[in-house]
Amino acid sequence: MGSLGRVLILVEEGFEDMEYFVPYYRLIEEGFTVDTASTRIRVIFGKHGYTAKPQILTKDVEPGEYNGLIIPGGKSPGKLRLDMHTLRVTRDIMVSGRIVATVCHGPQVLISAGVLKGRRITCHPSIKDDVMLAGASYIDQPVVVDKNLISSRKSEDLPYFCRELVRALKGLNSK
Amino acid sequence: MGSLGRVLILVEEGFEDMEYFVPYYRLIEEGFTVDTASTRIRVIFGKHGYTAKPQILTKDVEPGEYNGLIIPGGKSPGKLRLDMHTLRVTRDIMVSGRIVATVCHGPQVLISAGVLKGRRITCHPSIKDDVMLAGASYIDQPVVVDKNLISSRKSEDLPYFCRELVRALKGLNSK
Repeated sequence: MGSLGRVLILVEEGFEDMEYFVPYYRLIEEGFTVDTASTRIRVIFGKHGYTAKPQILTKDVEPGEYNGLIIPGGKSPGKLRLDMHTLRVTRDIMVSGRIVATVCHGPQVLISAGVLKGRRITCHPSIKDDVMLAGASYIDQPVVVDKNLISSRKSEDLPYFCRELVRALKGLNSK
Repeated sequence: MGSLGRVLILVEEGFEDMEYFVPYYRLIEEGFTVDTASTRIRVIFGKHGYTAKPQILTKDVEPGEYNGLIIPGGKSPGKLRLDMHTLRVTRDIMVSGRIVATVCHGPQVLISAGVLKGRRITCHPSIKDDVMLAGASYIDQPVVVDKNLISSRKSEDLPYFCRELVRALKGLNSK
């Protein structure tokens, strides 16, 4: 297992539990290696009390090692966007054309990384004005795929999010 | 969508949230139709506060309509095993050789349905004595596949559970 490639998930306190664990488990099922990064190494609690255990600090992440980046929603992206290492990693993976996938409030990190100009994206409706001010087009549908950028609105969209995520990550790998 | 077939999930109050939603979303992703049944039609709360919304009463379930049955863990199976319609549906699907999949405390329903004699299964360690007294062999591994019966121990096993579940429902051979 793990031979398909390596994917990074960024989390902070208050992440949306399903939006972390559903893609996390899905990629493990598929055979990817999945690393969880945060700003400190400790147990992190999701909104519903599940726990994530980061193995790597954002400051130590080598973005070139990853085929893709996932940013789950909840309160986590509002904290991650203040971390310069999160923004460095996000910018590197986004600009290189490798997969970037967000759910719910995840695009807050993309706004702060300054990588949304001219892109099509969906997100939680409460931040749609923010993504548009950052230069993106907001589309209200379960999943939006714009080249290397995959986005969904909420937990209920996760089946469609995971379908596109797996498809994209396997396509990237097979080139 | 939904053309692959129909799968039933049984839940009651206190279901383990991930063990319901991870396979539920996974099967929707794959294109199955997934029905949720319970003893009453109302919003049901998981241990972590997520909610399931059953569309069908167990007393109205026609087991012949389903390719498979999933019984998530948590406190839900301890309530479901008291419902004669749950036991009727479980027995029908199990005996017919269609897929039955349990996580954690899910096998409590199989014990009460009287369908475990001679079968190999895994479960939460706290009920391993019960499954053995019901005539099953208990195996401590992430997923156990014994013909039409697929079982896992806990949420962390879900990637391996889902892999075998999808494979079995699509009629593919295990490993």
